[in-house]
Amino acid sequence: MNRQWLYAKAPVGKITPDTFEWTETAIPVPRDGEALVRTRMLSLDPANRAWMMGKTYRDALAPGQVMSGFAVGEVVESKAAGLAKGDIVEGDWGWQDYAALPARRLYKRHTPAALELLIGPLSVTGLTAYFGLLDVGQPKAGDTVLVSAAAGAVGTMVGQIAKLAGCRVVGTAGGQEKCDWLVRELGFDAAVDYRAGGLRRALVSACPAGIDVYFDNTGGPVLDAALSLMNLRGRIVCCGNVSQYDVEKPAPGPMAVPGLVVTKRLRMEGFIVMDFYDRRAEAEARLAQWVADGRIKAVVDIIDGFEKAPEALIGLFEGRNRGKRAVRI
Amino acid sequence: MNRQWLYAKAPVGKITPDTFEWTETAIPVPRDGEALVRTRMLSLDPANRAWMMGKTYRDALAPGQVMSGFAVGEVVESKAAGLAKGDIVEGDWGWQDYAALPARRLYKRHTPAALELLIGPLSVTGLTAYFGLLDVGQPKAGDTVLVSAAAGAVGTMVGQIAKLAGCRVVGTAGGQEKCDWLVRELGFDAAVDYRAGGLRRALVSACPAGIDVYFDNTGGPVLDAALSLMNLRGRIVCCGNVSQYDVEKPAPGPMAVPGLVVTKRLRMEGFIVMDFYDRRAEAEARLAQWVADGRIKAVVDIIDGFEKAPEALIGLFEGRNRGKRAVRI
Repeated sequence: MNRQWLYAKAPVGKITPDTFEWTETAIPVPRDGEALVRTRMLSLDPANRAWMMGKTYRDALAPGQVMSGFAVGEVVESKAAGLAKGDIVEGDWGWQDYAALPARRLYKRHTPAALELLIGPLSVTGLTAYFGLLDVGQPKAGDTVLVSAAAGAVGTMVGQIAKLAGCRVVGTAGGQEKCDWLVRELGFDAAVDYRAGGLRRALVSACPAGIDVYFDNTGGPVLDAALSLMNLRGRIVCCGNVSQYDVEKPAPGPMAVPGLVVTKRLRMEGFIVMDFYDRRAEAEARLAQWVADGRIKAVVDIIDGFEKAPEALIGLFEGRNRGKRAVRI
Repeated sequence: MNRQWLYAKAPVGKITPDTFEWTETAIPVPRDGEALVRTRMLSLDPANRAWMMGKTYRDALAPGQVMSGFAVGEVVESKAAGLAKGDIVEGDWGWQDYAALPARRLYKRHTPAALELLIGPLSVTGLTAYFGLLDVGQPKAGDTVLVSAAAGAVGTMVGQIAKLAGCRVVGTAGGQEKCDWLVRELGFDAAVDYRAGGLRRALVSACPAGIDVYFDNTGGPVLDAALSLMNLRGRIVCCGNVSQYDVEKPAPGPMAVPGLVVTKRLRMEGFIVMDFYDRRAEAEARLAQWVADGRIKAVVDIIDGFEKAPEALIGLFEGRNRGKRAVRI
């Protein structure tokens, strides 16, 4: 049987178990040019929620469809050139045990690595951090880099890559425990609990020389505060807006836009990791080397059991994860 | 006597005649290294109002000081190397008949041109349009360029330079008469009256292929609407926020920031014309040539009489000007 989680209905405000619906169907049969893939890891990402809100860089999710999401899997049968049984592949085939897909929708991993790394640190979230920080953010040694959702999948990687680039690194996260962990375990220079109140004052103290690069995973209050502390010609890497995804009514936009963008000559630039996939192999190799050398800790938060996918995603918006959250099947 | 307009007190909401105070004082005597300049033209700019709101790229105006502003003048006495009686210079010496200034605060114009052109189209506002559009906006032939406050000093130049760059050019302005004038006299492909209601729908119709470059002079509702119509990898040139300068309570920021910035991979970038002054001579020469060739119409709105400076600035925020507004003394 092919177990599936369907996207059942659009959430009003927070996603709930009712957002999803369990179903079981037959294992699909691959046609010529297709491979049958068995899912091994499901990636849980804030973007999953954003796709429910309307058209983004992809069409909005439609109720009744298999819930979308990145996944890593193993080819169990292939009628596609270039793919063979046992190959490890990744793609966006959603929350199901099996999928039959044309080769162009599968990315074959050539370098052996643990599935826990392939679902995040050495794949989409690692690449998001890598290209977003280095290419969009253009940090220079000595810069102060702020990253929001710093204890998350992308944030943990951004902070560590920024340290390798010689920057002072400050993160925001929910709760003092996570903040302490960022400093102690991941080498952040400082971390600020955004839930503790006095956010701007805490950031002023954590960023005594202002902010040169803000890697924005959240939008919302951290973006507001960061804008007020950006240095001249600072760069804001617009990666996500997670503070506004799982809410009924989004907050107003940042008051400082466009005023401070003008007077401080800021650059705010959005990106999607796929825009950089022509340089994917290069970046994967560097990330893998950094992880192998112990220069970067790949932080993963693996939850066992396909049936737990909805609650694992709900927990992501409650800030229950550290690093990359994924479901192992 | 040296007539002066002082900045008397911070406005609450709109500027009024009471924002300024008339005074007369002695003509200053230049010291060694200084030149005495007689003001010939005073530039009126939305930025004058922004400087009253707090620190921007310069310190906030302080009540009691001579009102700041760009000006063009004539050297009437010089104790400064490189400056001689009769030289035409520009600088920021504010609203007064005379000022004694060190040479480094004066920019000497070498190319003869009418003072009406030197106060705007061939100087600060022309350069703002030139560098902002071409360097920050990076338009390509065939792109759709939207510019707000299109009938203003910067907007009239942006639109015409964008036409020279082979773009489809759409402007927003207040009132149908200005809109018709933009199309008929300045060669805009379309213009939208932002006061007429149905702004977004009108922009959809004026920009059937979406917007590639939005040159934002206004912030506010036009920025909101433009964000929703930007094409993938579009550029928003953040030049000004005039819709929010002359108000008591600024409107909330754009809801689409950072959400659409991410999903559309937009770049929003602020600039100040002075950032580009190392290339000033090159740009001035090109602008002068375009004006001389009749490829660009330099639109100026000259008001005679120093005593009229406050009402001329107030009128700027009421949209009474077309092109560059200045006071001739």
